[in-house]
Amino acid sequence: MEYQFASRTKKVTASEVREILKVVARPEIMSFAGGLPAPELFPVDEVSKQCQAVLEEQGPKALQYATTEGYTPLREWIANRLNTKWGTTAGIENVLIVSGSQSALDMISKLMLDDGDVVWCENPTYLAALTAFRLLGPTFETMPSDDNGVIVEGLEERILQHKPRMVYVIPTFQNPSGRTWSMERRKAFMELMTKYEIMVVEDNAYYELCFDDIEYCSLTKFDTKGLVISVGSFSKVLCPGLRVAWINANPTVIDKLVIIKQSTDLQTATLNQMVVHRFLTHNDFDARVKLICDVYGARRDAMLDELAHSLPEGCTFTRPAGGMFVWVTMPECVNSKSLLDRCLKYNVAVVPGHSFYAVEPKHNTVRLNYSNLPPEKIHFGVSKVCQAIAEEIAEAEA
Amino acid sequence: MEYQFASRTKKVTASEVREILKVVARPEIMSFAGGLPAPELFPVDEVSKQCQAVLEEQGPKALQYATTEGYTPLREWIANRLNTKWGTTAGIENVLIVSGSQSALDMISKLMLDDGDVVWCENPTYLAALTAFRLLGPTFETMPSDDNGVIVEGLEERILQHKPRMVYVIPTFQNPSGRTWSMERRKAFMELMTKYEIMVVEDNAYYELCFDDIEYCSLTKFDTKGLVISVGSFSKVLCPGLRVAWINANPTVIDKLVIIKQSTDLQTATLNQMVVHRFLTHNDFDARVKLICDVYGARRDAMLDELAHSLPEGCTFTRPAGGMFVWVTMPECVNSKSLLDRCLKYNVAVVPGHSFYAVEPKHNTVRLNYSNLPPEKIHFGVSKVCQAIAEEIAEAEA
Repeated sequence: MEYQFASRTKKVTASEVREILKVVARPEIMSFAGGLPAPELFPVDEVSKQCQAVLEEQGPKALQYATTEGYTPLREWIANRLNTKWGTTAGIENVLIVSGSQSALDMISKLMLDDGDVVWCENPTYLAALTAFRLLGPTFETMPSDDNGVIVEGLEERILQHKPRMVYVIPTFQNPSGRTWSMERRKAFMELMTKYEIMVVEDNAYYELCFDDIEYCSLTKFDTKGLVISVGSFSKVLCPGLRVAWINANPTVIDKLVIIKQSTDLQTATLNQMVVHRFLTHNDFDARVKLICDVYGARRDAMLDELAHSLPEGCTFTRPAGGMFVWVTMPECVNSKSLLDRCLKYNVAVVPGHSFYAVEPKHNTVRLNYSNLPPEKIHFGVSKVCQAIAEEIAEAEA
Repeated sequence: MEYQFASRTKKVTASEVREILKVVARPEIMSFAGGLPAPELFPVDEVSKQCQAVLEEQGPKALQYATTEGYTPLREWIANRLNTKWGTTAGIENVLIVSGSQSALDMISKLMLDDGDVVWCENPTYLAALTAFRLLGPTFETMPSDDNGVIVEGLEERILQHKPRMVYVIPTFQNPSGRTWSMERRKAFMELMTKYEIMVVEDNAYYELCFDDIEYCSLTKFDTKGLVISVGSFSKVLCPGLRVAWINANPTVIDKLVIIKQSTDLQTATLNQMVVHRFLTHNDFDARVKLICDVYGARRDAMLDELAHSLPEGCTFTRPAGGMFVWVTMPECVNSKSLLDRCLKYNVAVVPGHSFYAVEPKHNTVRLNYSNLPPEKIHFGVSKVCQAIAEEIAEAEA
């Protein structure tokens, strides 16, 4: 049987990162390849307790169909949290509960993208966003960026030539680069988007994971026209296995997304929403975020220390103020796929960086994750990665 | 701000049924409008127990990211169940876990449908399937059917003129009509599909809910070429609020759907899959199905009795052997929207049937749900519906 699938299926292939993760799942491998939150910080007993409490208090309601919009008290909690953090004025009408932020990106694509539309993004960027978008047929153009975020200068000329359908950005603790936009850049960027009324998809999956004393905010803060569709998640601050995330946007946008969600997955699991809400209202969420940030901050420090100490000359790395990733750029002679093979011989794993590029992939880059290993292992493992890089450089130069 | 959304958004509107359900959610309304499983049959305490057990046994694994394919033991359980029921030989490679069967329909659309493709379906059919498909741009053509299912005669000529991209059918306890295809029709239909290698999406959401001693099976039973993509769900036999369902298909099809699911929602909630699996392996599932069928069967009987007794002359109704719905056809002079308004005055609610039509909606039809009310209320409520119908007829004929 020769199957004929839709033409869009030719545009997406299995996520290379997820395929690598299968390879490196062997227990002897110390992996910096994934993007897993630290499981030892998951509130297992507390989630168990909340499951019991919700089922006792809500009874069958917790297991029945519920509204597409999501559990109202949870939407309210999220609106309040965002308002407290950013000084915005969101209400429940600004919040739609979704089944993980990947699902948010899928539904936003359906809302926004026609075949052939142009999406602007950072380069590198979150690869699974690109695949979600790709199913709906857009092409990608990239915006130049540096350690302070997207470089706004020069974008207006490009808009005047061809206005993009939307932009997709991760301004805070970016995956994969670990970079965070400065406040000035955020403001200037949003001024431009506002002037030309361009929809902005802000991926804010890591926004709570701030280790340093830096100033940052959601782009919604500077959004005077309802242009920003901001995606947040409980995956990194509670746990990913419950698949509860949200979209924060203008009510007109939310209303349309509700219709799309009806067709996409009807609703997010009722029990999960109630459990997350009860967890949030019966625990000190700020204390929980602080705990995660303390642990991850120490892990980041370990990684940056080891990189500073062991990374060969000619390599550079980012210094994230939060999130889960460091981005390493090696001399152009090094190919990250070959590096991965060498790393695996040392029982360490990294993710080659080229998958994260929307266009013009750079093969001399790797992403390192630090959230899932204790500092001493990070020191040891990163030293092995650095050794492998040094050997790759030596071999390339030989 | 004037938003410009993707052109596909113009093709889908808020589900009329879900909008009606909001109206009829008032506590004084006795509703036959929804499609809710009986919440008093949800195993609330048992789910609570399984949540605890899973979190104790699996620990943080139950809350961590997991594979897109789904929890292997659950895939195995489903394959075994289907094999036992249909005498098929499915393995885990034939099963993908999804977040509710609506999500299955969404991903199947992405897999199969290009803009302008033709989908054949029954008429009426499950309206939320149509909206899921519609987002990907197909047009619908319908197959004639009677009380024994789709009428196969005449389809071959149509195939020879224009082969459809796929067909979508609900052969067992159909939503909304309550009809079930005979074994002969299933076989003849699949022979034709096999001859012309046409992909068949079988929506099997209700297949376990059989009240009578009838013979039926999944279309996979007659599938020799891997053409059937069959969708099943735990929503009707366990509870809908956990959002756990599955797709059963050829491994080549499953592999492609896995890639699409990576982009669509990454994975179904880890905890939920483990809880469903532990529930299934620590309880007598057949006994549970029998309990539900006994309860729903009695409710169906109450509805059919009352309809036989009270429905005005000139009306007909289906006699479902299982599932959750009866379909009533009234004289053509009656408009079901006007009927709904009259019903609401009597504090009862029905769903107008026209939304369920892919083409040529019939406005003299209504769907009645019997799963969510006890027999005595069904008798009383249906008598009110019949009274309203009689009044509509009288008014139309006046």
